[in-house]
Amino acid sequence: MKKASIVSIGNEILSGQTVDTNTSYLSGKMFSIGVPVVSVRTVGDDIDFIVRALVSAIHDADFILVTGGLGPTGDDLTRPALAKKLDVELQLQEEMLQQINDFFDFRGLQMPPANKVQAYIPAGAKAIKNNIGTAPGIMAQFKGRIIFALPGVPSEMKQMFEEYVLPELKKVIVDSKQPAIAIRKLKCFGAGESTIARLIGDMMQRGRNPLINSTAVNGIVTLHIIATTEDKLRAEQMAGEDEKLLRNKLADFVYGTAEQSLAEVVGAKLAKLGKKVATAESCTGGILAKLLTDVPGASRYFTYGWVTYSNQAKIQQLSVPADLLEKYGAVSEQIARAMAKGARKNSGADFSIGITGIAGPAGGSEQKPVGLVYISVDSVTECEVKRLIFSYERQAMRLRTANTALNMLRLKIEKLT
Amino acid sequence: MKKASIVSIGNEILSGQTVDTNTSYLSGKMFSIGVPVVSVRTVGDDIDFIVRALVSAIHDADFILVTGGLGPTGDDLTRPALAKKLDVELQLQEEMLQQINDFFDFRGLQMPPANKVQAYIPAGAKAIKNNIGTAPGIMAQFKGRIIFALPGVPSEMKQMFEEYVLPELKKVIVDSKQPAIAIRKLKCFGAGESTIARLIGDMMQRGRNPLINSTAVNGIVTLHIIATTEDKLRAEQMAGEDEKLLRNKLADFVYGTAEQSLAEVVGAKLAKLGKKVATAESCTGGILAKLLTDVPGASRYFTYGWVTYSNQAKIQQLSVPADLLEKYGAVSEQIARAMAKGARKNSGADFSIGITGIAGPAGGSEQKPVGLVYISVDSVTECEVKRLIFSYERQAMRLRTANTALNMLRLKIEKLT
Repeated sequence: MKKASIVSIGNEILSGQTVDTNTSYLSGKMFSIGVPVVSVRTVGDDIDFIVRALVSAIHDADFILVTGGLGPTGDDLTRPALAKKLDVELQLQEEMLQQINDFFDFRGLQMPPANKVQAYIPAGAKAIKNNIGTAPGIMAQFKGRIIFALPGVPSEMKQMFEEYVLPELKKVIVDSKQPAIAIRKLKCFGAGESTIARLIGDMMQRGRNPLINSTAVNGIVTLHIIATTEDKLRAEQMAGEDEKLLRNKLADFVYGTAEQSLAEVVGAKLAKLGKKVATAESCTGGILAKLLTDVPGASRYFTYGWVTYSNQAKIQQLSVPADLLEKYGAVSEQIARAMAKGARKNSGADFSIGITGIAGPAGGSEQKPVGLVYISVDSVTECEVKRLIFSYERQAMRLRTANTALNMLRLKIEKLT
Repeated sequence: MKKASIVSIGNEILSGQTVDTNTSYLSGKMFSIGVPVVSVRTVGDDIDFIVRALVSAIHDADFILVTGGLGPTGDDLTRPALAKKLDVELQLQEEMLQQINDFFDFRGLQMPPANKVQAYIPAGAKAIKNNIGTAPGIMAQFKGRIIFALPGVPSEMKQMFEEYVLPELKKVIVDSKQPAIAIRKLKCFGAGESTIARLIGDMMQRGRNPLINSTAVNGIVTLHIIATTEDKLRAEQMAGEDEKLLRNKLADFVYGTAEQSLAEVVGAKLAKLGKKVATAESCTGGILAKLLTDVPGASRYFTYGWVTYSNQAKIQQLSVPADLLEKYGAVSEQIARAMAKGARKNSGADFSIGITGIAGPAGGSEQKPVGLVYISVDSVTECEVKRLIFSYERQAMRLRTANTALNMLRLKIEKLT
């Protein structure tokens, strides 16, 4: 089985100024074509460190993916390090030089002399064209290994990987006994990772095929179903069967697949029904509206949103009765309900969501602690209110609240249809 | 000079499911105490790979920081790998076992038998207490090197690093000839990285001390001033002098320091003046309100926000004249202005922001392309409108728009005061 290793180059990563997202992108891509990444090495702009990393990577794997160090400055040492490791000279590639010249020409600029160095490629290696930047990539062979060097700028790296590296890799692995892998993702909300693990039972056992594992971010639990076998079709079939089993076990907790957000799923349901939702937010301060409008085309089902961050705003914009505010306080079931009702009435929407709570860090009391939130979902048939206490810090609490509101709306729509 | 190396362990990182943020956290922390991280190795849950990574890390550096692989399952191999490298046995530490037991007790649970393995530590090494999880860390000495192994869960890792590792490191480096480092950050908005580099000139030269470099995210350019010398006080002084020079050169482009957001800076200015701002958003759909309310205590200066995602909502909620909408279209200077004016009038705020644009990917035309946005900032003295075209995808365009609006408000407030 073919394996891969990554070498990531740059002082900015080692000093903690930049989070290296290239590595997780490349790891995920390699994983999905059945080539596991077995090691990653990050080194600074130091030729000896780069060469040593290349030596170790070549020891570990068949495919070596190098990112960074292809810029035009004296700190960019991937080219000389590669040449040193391959024991060849750097050679000027006229075609690449022309492309770099064209890059500047196109922008009405003269190529700075420093950029010429980017057209030097180790002898015998191939240059990989960069369509959106000046740094060409490099593809070199070494004792049965293939080394790809790509720029560190994520957008350039990704485009070159997709357009050039991936097809090259596929050519090579089609002849090797690479396993076929099928991956499905199920997105869940409303239960924590441990509850979901308990419901799934021994399907999550290590070593099982398909392998099922979970990740959790802001209350959204993503289940990865990874089927590995010799045949792509069979792998897809195995993953599909597991998806069905999981959906049965998890029922309502599964809200979508792949990269779907709750807002996307809720939005699609609303659009399909020709219904609209309005929002009235206090502690979430616009996050719910933001999540809804993150989705292109949201204006089909979302047109009115209010952020009412004071009592006066609630009274004036959402017709929340002043005596209710006085009697129960702004963070109460009654006010969440009144906010939702006001938003639905003022907007003419079919559904509305009212949110009031204490995001913190200040503003809590013994009776109404930081993290307390009331979420109301109103429709023509009923007005539901949930009281929750989240023990997350401000931002996580707000995001979790907004997602919980979307999930309540999702379940309500599913119940109605 | 002392150096550090990081070994990050876990299949979930190598398969691209998890972005390794621990490494950039640790790199930044080490950098700030003058101990550069010279290499990072990521390997999976494989004992031979872990041992090889430890060997190489020990070759590279004085301090080895290991994260991950301390859990209770058979895949957690940091303990046996360390014991193998140190050529010692794993020994049960009764005190740690008691702490793990206490952890479960406290939650009304019985310790699962599997967790006992977490109390085994290589002979001669010290256990590091974990206050928020079950995995103790490990501190071991090896031929003048110090190895710290910490859990992979970021919150646990960070707490243990701050509470235990950092003080230990400081004890060691105080006697070594470690350079003193002072770091300052200046946050800029309104100019790209290249414009800022041009304004700064040769202060950004490589090899200069203080070293000045920049990173850019969503239009916010962060300048890092890194002064290195023998004496902490002198380093601070050097960094402070450079900060003054940069502020002179960049003038209005500098909006803050350290980790400040534009919303935070604008909010502080409003709070100080006792003024309020209201928001009326179309294409940003609540992002501006979200940014404002990300800041604790925002209710002092932000109480009214509208998301008006249809013509009707603009007319009804913000008193935008219907004939203006018909004549100029929703995405126009006139409507941005009317939205801001309506929001200010309805809320009684001192300032207001109106935003209308086309976030895409659909909805553009030749005259009004995707990325076109009008931002209006209204006050009692004047109403300013900016027309911009951003060539970013939907989310980046929306965020950039909201930040641009905040920056316009910042400059207006600065002008008024």
